[in-house]
Amino acid sequence: MPLVRIDVNEGRAPDELRRLSRAIHDAILAEYGIPERDYFHILTEHPQGQILAQDAGLGFERSGGVVMIQIFTQGGRSQEAKQKLFAAVAGKLSEEGVAGEDVFIGYVENTAGDWSFGFGRAQYVTGELAVPKR
Amino acid sequence: MPLVRIDVNEGRAPDELRRLSRAIHDAILAEYGIPERDYFHILTEHPQGQILAQDAGLGFERSGGVVMIQIFTQGGRSQEAKQKLFAAVAGKLSEEGVAGEDVFIGYVENTAGDWSFGFGRAQYVTGELAVPKR
Amino acid sequence: MPLVRIDVNEGRAPDELRRLSRAIHDAILAEYGIPERDYFHILTEHPQGQILAQDAGLGFERSGGVVMIQIFTQGGRSQEAKQKLFAAVAGKLSEEGVAGEDVFIGYVENTAGDWSFGFGRAQYVTGELAVPKR
Repeated sequence: MPLVRIDVNEGRAPDELRRLSRAIHDAILAEYGIPERDYFHILTEHPQGQILAQDAGLGFERSGGVVMIQIFTQGGRSQEAKQKLFAAVAGKLSEEGVAGEDVFIGYVENTAGDWSFGFGRAQYVTGELAVPKR
Repeated sequence: MPLVRIDVNEGRAPDELRRLSRAIHDAILAEYGIPERDYFHILTEHPQGQILAQDAGLGFERSGGVVMIQIFTQGGRSQEAKQKLFAAVAGKLSEEGVAGEDVFIGYVENTAGDWSFGFGRAQYVTGELAVPKR
Repeated sequence: MPLVRIDVNEGRAPDELRRLSRAIHDAILAEYGIPERDYFHILTEHPQGQILAQDAGLGFERSGGVVMIQIFTQGGRSQEAKQKLFAAVAGKLSEEGVAGEDVFIGYVENTAGDWSFGFGRAQYVTGELAVPKR
C-alpha cells in the first residue's frame, strides 16, 4: 500500500531511477514487513529549477541529486516505526550513492479502507488482502 | 472539491486522456452528488518505467495502461460510500477500455475548510459554496 | 516544512515559475512565521489540457494561467490561520500577475513527526528543529 511519489531532477539514467525506487521499496519492506508486490511508486523527473528544497535551517546544502519522497500510507504506525523507516530509506539510498543531505521525506496517513488495488474493490475491506500489522 | 491526480504512462492520445478524466469525474458525480463544475484533475504522463504498480499480492498483472488515481477530498464519507465510489470509477473507466487490473486508487481526506477555489477564499467556510452533504 | 506542489500549464518562462514559487513561499513565511529556508516546492508543468480546473459552481472562468497549489503541512493551525494563508497566497500571486480566478489551493495535514529533511532523521522529533508554533 504505501503509494510513494518520488520527484527528482532530470539527469539520472533510467536504471539509476529504477534502483532509487527499489532502494526505497527495500527500506519499506524491511521496516514495515509489507508484501514484496505491495509496490506502488510514481517517479517524476523535473527540469532543473523546478524542485526547490532547502535545509529548513539545519545548516547544510543539498545537491542537484536531491530525492523528494512522499509516502502515502495507512496510519497507525508509531512515531518510532516511522523514524526507523526514514533511517532505512536514507540508508538504502546511500548505498545507491544518494547523500543524506539529499533525502527529503514527507509522510501522509489515511486508512486501509482508502485503497483500491484494482477492479474498484477496497481489498483491505473485502478481506481479499490482510490489513498490514502495525 | 475532490482534487484528483491521475498518473499514466505516455502513449494515450489527448482525447483518450480527456475521456479517462471525464469517466472518473462522472463516477464522482454519480456517487457523491457534487456539482458538475466541481472538477479538478491534474493528469501527468510518465515515460515508461516511472510508474511501478504491482498487485499487492492479489495475483494479477497490470498492463502499461495502468491508471494511478489519487483522490484528495473532504473526509466524513462512510466506508461504504467510498467503496461505491471506487467501484463506480472502475466501472466508468472500463467503458473507456481500461481493464479492472489497471485501476489503482488511493484516497486522502482533509476538511471542507482546507480548500480555496479562487481569490484566496475558503469558499466552504465563507458560505459562498455549500459544504457537500455526506 | 510545508511541502508545496505547484502544477501549471506549460508556457511560463523559468524565471516566471521561480517567481510564482517565491510568491507562495513569501505568503507562507508571512502568515506562518516559518524559517526562510523551510522552503520545499515541487513545480510541474503540464501540456495543455492536462489540468482541468473549473469553478466548483462559483461562476467564473479560469485562464490557462491557473496555478494549482497543494500544501502538505503539520496540522493544528486554526481555520482562521488557514484562511489568512490562502488570502496571502492569492495576494502575493496577484503581484506576479496571477488573477484571483487562477489560484486553486488544497491543504493536507500531517504531524511534525511525519517529516524528515535529510539523513533519514525526523528533525522535529529529534529536537534538531523546533516544532513550528501554531
